Amino acid sequence: MRKRIAVLPGDGIGPEVTEAAVKVLQVIGRRFKHTFDVEYGSIGGEAIDKYKTPLPDETIELCQQSDAILLGAVGGPKWDKNPAELRPEKGLLAIRKHFDLFANLRPVIAVPSLLKASPLKEEVVKDVDLMIVRELTGGLYFGEPSKRTEKAAFDTLVYTKKEIERIVEKAFELARLRKGKVTSVDKENVLQSSKLWREVVEEKKKGYPDVEVEHMLVDSAAMQLVTNPCAFDVVVTENMFGDILSDEASVITGSLGVLPSASIRADGFGMYEPIHGTAPDIAGQGKANPAATILSVAMMLKYSFGLEEECAAIEEAVNAVFEDGFYTADLASPADRVLSTNEWTDKVVDE
Amino acid sequence: MRKRIAVLPGDGIGPEVTEAAVKVLQVIGRRFKHTFDVEYGSIGGEAIDKYKTPLPDETIELCQQSDAILLGAVGGPKWDKNPAELRPEKGLLAIRKHFDLFANLRPVIAVPSLLKASPLKEEVVKDVDLMIVRELTGGLYFGEPSKRTEKAAFDTLVYTKKEIERIVEKAFELARLRKGKVTSVDKENVLQSSKLWREVVEEKKKGYPDVEVEHMLVDSAAMQLVTNPCAFDVVVTENMFGDILSDEASVITGSLGVLPSASIRADGFGMYEPIHGTAPDIAGQGKANPAATILSVAMMLKYSFGLEEECAAIEEAVNAVFEDGFYTADLASPADRVLSTNEWTDKVVDE
Ligand SMILES: CC(C)[C@H](C(=O)O)[C@@H](O)C(=O)O
Ligand SMILES: CC(C)[C@H](C(=O)O)[C@@H](O)C(=O)O
Repeated sequence: MRKRIAVLPGDGIGPEVTEAAVKVLQVIGRRFKHTFDVEYGSIGGEAIDKYKTPLPDETIELCQQSDAILLGAVGGPKWDKNPAELRPEKGLLAIRKHFDLFANLRPVIAVPSLLKASPLKEEVVKDVDLMIVRELTGGLYFGEPSKRTEKAAFDTLVYTKKEIERIVEKAFELARLRKGKVTSVDKENVLQSSKLWREVVEEKKKGYPDVEVEHMLVDSAAMQLVTNPCAFDVVVTENMFGDILSDEASVITGSLGVLPSASIRADGFGMYEPIHGTAPDIAGQGKANPAATILSVAMMLKYSFGLEEECAAIEEAVNAVFEDGFYTADLASPADRVLSTNEWTDKVVDE
Repeated sequence: MRKRIAVLPGDGIGPEVTEAAVKVLQVIGRRFKHTFDVEYGSIGGEAIDKYKTPLPDETIELCQQSDAILLGAVGGPKWDKNPAELRPEKGLLAIRKHFDLFANLRPVIAVPSLLKASPLKEEVVKDVDLMIVRELTGGLYFGEPSKRTEKAAFDTLVYTKKEIERIVEKAFELARLRKGKVTSVDKENVLQSSKLWREVVEEKKKGYPDVEVEHMLVDSAAMQLVTNPCAFDVVVTENMFGDILSDEASVITGSLGVLPSASIRADGFGMYEPIHGTAPDIAGQGKANPAATILSVAMMLKYSFGLEEECAAIEEAVNAVFEDGFYTADLASPADRVLSTNEWTDKVVDE
C-alpha cells in the first residue's frame, strides 16, 4: 500500500511528537511493506507568524492531495491576545470544517501502569474502555447567527437531520466493532435540537438490532463518567457536549498525556492528533511524551487505511513499553529512570 | 422574625424529605424565636395528575405571597412519556422563569465521613469547598427561536449584558464571603455569548479588587473539577455549562445525596431544594435521606432571611450527626446501623 500523509507539526511540542510518530510510522511501513510519503505543512501559531493566517492555502492544498493528516498541536501564550481570526485554534476549526471531518473519535482506555496517576480510585477506573464520538462540524460551533449587538450576544445551536444521521450511524458502526453499546447523550428535556437528535437515534437503532442503545441527559452523563465510567462503550453526542464530556473523560484514567484522537469524514479521510496541548514550557527540550501522537498514527492506520494489524502492532508496542516501566518525565515516578522523547520512541520502535 | 414559606413537596421522596426539613425549620424557629408559617402547594407530576399542569396558578399565587419556597423534587417514570408541556420538569423551568430566580447556588463540600463513598481518591477531594453559581434563566434554556423544521432543529443561546452582569456580581459578592476567588467559565474561543461574558467579568472585577479572578474554558473546567477540585472557590457560568458542571461537581466528594441548592432573585426571594432526584424506587418507605433538604432550609435561612447563625446551627447539627456515624440507608456501610428518615431527622433535631 502506498499512502501520502500530510504532517502538520504546529506549535510547542508539536514538532517533537510528530517527528517521533513519523519515525514509528516509517518503521511500520518497512516492516509491513507499505510506503508512507510524508510531507510537511504549516498550521496554528507558526502559520500565523509565517503566513499571517492559522490555516494557509498551501496547507489546505497539501492536505487535499494527501490520504490523511497527522497534526501535532496548536496554540500558545504568544498568540493568546490576537484578534479572533488570528488565533491558532481557528486553524483547527477551519480545517475540520473545510474537510468535513464530522466524526471526532476519542477513545479512553485504562492503562494499568498509569492508573496511579488517576484522580479516581483504581477500582472505579481499572476497566474503562470507552470511545466518545463527538459531532465536530455542527451545532453551536458553526451555527448562524453568531453575533453581537450593543446589548446582547447570540449563538445558534442548529443541526440538520442529515448531520445527526451520519454521526449516529458512525457510532452504531463503531459499537458493533467494540462492546456493542451506544449511549446517546442529549438534553432532550430542554433543547429542540436534542429532541431531533433522540428521534434520529430511535430511527437508526432499528438498523442495528445487535447494538444496545441508551439515552442519557448530558448532566447525568457528566456524573456517570465520574461515578461509573466502566458502564460506557460508545458515547455519541453533539459538538459542544462532546467537547466537554470528552475532556472530562480524558482525565479519569490518569492517561491524559497518552490519548489519541481521530477526526474523520465519511470516506475515511481523516485528521489524527494527540488530545494534549502544546506544552510550551517544555517545548524543544526532548522531554515531551510522544505516546499520544504515536497512538494517533495507529488510529490513522486503522480508520483511514484499514490496516488493523499494523494499528494493533503499534498499540501493543506502546503498552509493552509502559508495562516494562519506561516513562517520559510527565509520567515517571521519582524512582523511575526518565526517558527522553527520542529514547522512549526508540523503545517503541524496538518492540 | 416572621416568615411565610411555600412548601412544594413534589414527587417520589419529595414529601418525606420536605416534611423532615420543615420539622427542623420549626425547631429552629422555636429555638431562635422566629415564626415560620408553612403552606403547601402542588408542583411537578402530582400537579399534572391533579391540575393537568406541572405548575398550577394556585401554586404561583401561593409562592407570590410567600417569602421563600422549599421544593422537594419533581419527576418520575409515570410522566416520562408525556408530551413536553406535561412533563414535571417543565414546572421547575417555569417557576424559575416566573420568579426570575437567575442565580443558582450549588455548594459542594467534602464531608470527611462521606469521603469513602467518593469515586475520587481521598487526597484529591478531602479539601473541596466550592460553589457553582449557575445562571438559571437565560441562555439555551429560554432563547428564541427554539424550533423544528422538516429537516433541522434550532436552539438559541442568547445573553443580554444585563443578565450577565447580575450573575457575575452575585458571584463576586459570594466570593468575598468565602475564599475570595472567582473562576469564570466560558467558551470564549468559540462563542460570541462567551466573549461578551468574559468582557463583563473583566469590567466587573474592577469593583472587586480584593477578589482573585481567573477565566477558564468549559472543557478545561470539566477536567479540573476532576483533577484538581480543591483549586476552586466560586465558579460562575452560564445556564447550560452550569447544568453540566454542577452535576459533575456534585459527585466528586461522594456526597451527592446530601447537597442542597438555592435559586435566588436579586431581592433575596428564593427557591431551595435538594439536588437529588425523586428516587421513586424508595418513595414512601421512610428510607430517604433528608440531609440535602434540611441543608437547603439552612441556605434559605442564610440567603433569603439573612439568618446566618440559624443556618450555621443546622449545618453543624447535620455534620455532627454524620460524624457520630448515623446514616440513612443510602450512606450506611454494612456495619452501620441504618436510620429511617424520621430517626435521622430526630438526631439532627437533638443536636
Ligand atoms: C481549541 C478548541 C476550539 C477545540 C474545540 O473546542 O473543539 C478544542 O477544545 C478541542 O476539543 O479540540
Ligand atoms: C430537569 C432539568 C430541566 C433541570 C435543568 O437542566 O436545569 C435539572 O437538570 C437541574 O439542573 O435542575
